[in-house]
Amino acid sequence: MPDISTLTDRVAPLKRKGDAVYFLDQLALPGTVRYKRCATPAAVADAIRTMVLRGAPLIGCAAAYGYAFAAKGAGKADAAVLGRLAKAERLLAASRPTAVNLFWALKAMSGKTRSLCAAKTTRLYRELLAAADAVTREDVETNRRMAAHGAALLKKGSTVMTICNTGALATAGIGTALGVVRWARRLGKIKLVYALETRPYLQGARLTMWELQREGIPARLITDGMAAHIMKTERIDAVLTGADRVAANGDAANKIGTYGLSLLAKAHGIPFYVVAPSTTVDLATAGGDDIPIEERSEREVLEVRGLRLSPAGARARHPAFDVTPARLITALVTDRGVVKPPSRARLKKVLSKC
Amino acid sequence: MPDISTLTDRVAPLKRKGDAVYFLDQLALPGTVRYKRCATPAAVADAIRTMVLRGAPLIGCAAAYGYAFAAKGAGKADAAVLGRLAKAERLLAASRPTAVNLFWALKAMSGKTRSLCAAKTTRLYRELLAAADAVTREDVETNRRMAAHGAALLKKGSTVMTICNTGALATAGIGTALGVVRWARRLGKIKLVYALETRPYLQGARLTMWELQREGIPARLITDGMAAHIMKTERIDAVLTGADRVAANGDAANKIGTYGLSLLAKAHGIPFYVVAPSTTVDLATAGGDDIPIEERSEREVLEVRGLRLSPAGARARHPAFDVTPARLITALVTDRGVVKPPSRARLKKVLSKC
Repeated sequence: MPDISTLTDRVAPLKRKGDAVYFLDQLALPGTVRYKRCATPAAVADAIRTMVLRGAPLIGCAAAYGYAFAAKGAGKADAAVLGRLAKAERLLAASRPTAVNLFWALKAMSGKTRSLCAAKTTRLYRELLAAADAVTREDVETNRRMAAHGAALLKKGSTVMTICNTGALATAGIGTALGVVRWARRLGKIKLVYALETRPYLQGARLTMWELQREGIPARLITDGMAAHIMKTERIDAVLTGADRVAANGDAANKIGTYGLSLLAKAHGIPFYVVAPSTTVDLATAGGDDIPIEERSEREVLEVRGLRLSPAGARARHPAFDVTPARLITALVTDRGVVKPPSRARLKKVLSKC
Repeated sequence: MPDISTLTDRVAPLKRKGDAVYFLDQLALPGTVRYKRCATPAAVADAIRTMVLRGAPLIGCAAAYGYAFAAKGAGKADAAVLGRLAKAERLLAASRPTAVNLFWALKAMSGKTRSLCAAKTTRLYRELLAAADAVTREDVETNRRMAAHGAALLKKGSTVMTICNTGALATAGIGTALGVVRWARRLGKIKLVYALETRPYLQGARLTMWELQREGIPARLITDGMAAHIMKTERIDAVLTGADRVAANGDAANKIGTYGLSLLAKAHGIPFYVVAPSTTVDLATAGGDDIPIEERSEREVLEVRGLRLSPAGARARHPAFDVTPARLITALVTDRGVVKPPSRARLKKVLSKC
């Protein structure tokens, strides 16, 4: 049996060098591989908002660095630097509303500030930078644990379907749902992946297909509207998706299109697995209706990558996420174990594990 | 009450002038309005295959002209011209496989040839051209009858959802499903239309949004993956689609994405109406599994209008249609009446009407 610790991310969507982070510009992929340097909280917030980077876990790591940069040069935690940190926290928290990992990372970092304060640190910035590094390192391990739990649910030679990008480009490690696919492939469990292109941002076409190709995993790109036909006419063994926030009752917000996909899976009797780190579970959000759904610019729907498709003056809607109710989720795969099916009681039990 | 005969098509996707037809180039819309002149069977077949024109009823009209052009200049029906007509019929029949209106129109035209032959015509070409004109004129009336039947199913102030383009650009008249919407709007029954963009060809974004804008009907463009979320979070009163072929048992083939949309409508308790002329019903096809589904080029999925989205070497699937089973269709709206719900017995009964 292969060793999961040998499964590493060769994509590197986030690199920290000295006092800056470099984000692989996901808007330019797959055509161009270029990095964007960000060395201030504002630059990081802007990169998150404009989707230079995306993916709930990766947004969390980025926000941790953005927060740390507000303390740049600071030794002691004086009033001035604490003010800058509080301001950075607000700025970063306002960058995108749905993925809870962002808020989790900011909370972890501000908690770190408070304890450094209490300990009368003289190395505030260095300690915060180290804390952001730790958040990122931890995500790598979290990914591996999810991959091991998730792959156990799949049988040999499976054909699976996935939406958006949930791989190395969405995390600091091998990914969430796509991490499961990578590990399952090593175990001989993946024959073929159907990737939904995921309009409007085309993360499936641009990012998932790119990652799968690099990994040598056989894949077919389909448009979002083809999912039902493929489920009916081919054997699909499982649908695997990520999540941006899981409410206390197990309802899961994820990329727009996921909710519809879960209904189609149900109609065809296909298991529907949501793969997300335990930091994505937000016990403070009671149910799916309480998750804020980001509404992005109409232009992103009226155009494809700057190419105008619809007539001038046309109007559009652009909800960027939707909510899949717990009843349509066969199992939630977390780093702490599989919650099958997700419910308030089972989620609480899994989250209480270390 | 407005008079439905005042509802005319101002779009003109097909114009016959002398010995040629001019097709509005639907690949160039909405950015460019230009016509492509076709004066031979091969040119018409090519325009159908490359989707310069599309829409099942319009393809039928185009094929009728393409067939007639094979007889250009002929007075008597001699062996040479009959050979050219038979060759044209084969060529046109091979242009696209799913829409049955194409085969219906060719059958009607070859039947006309046989009767002209029997009558020892001396005006073969002129008579065939007149027959193609009649097929086209008849489609205009057929559209109006469907619109009247369909609008009667809708209530005041409805918000409806539609996929692909089923309007004046898909027919010789006001359209099928979109013809219903246009007429219902005149009757005060349409508040808002959600149009699915309909990847990969984007007929919803490019064609339906253009038509709705010209008609002054409020519309919002959504990506195909947004349908379920909009159904859950907004009030949708009905889904209206066209069909490319309806089998004897009521199963309906239509643009890829329609089957999934029908499952989502069912899950949300929304009526799902298929609007198609009686010539779309093919009693020779027993059920949906017997309808040939066209598989088009992978490139059309890997690209958006020539813009490469996915990495070089990526593979895709491209089924251009899917089949909605009769059990998911609330009613089939034809020019001869409403079949609610569609079944073999009810379809036969409606088709036997004049």
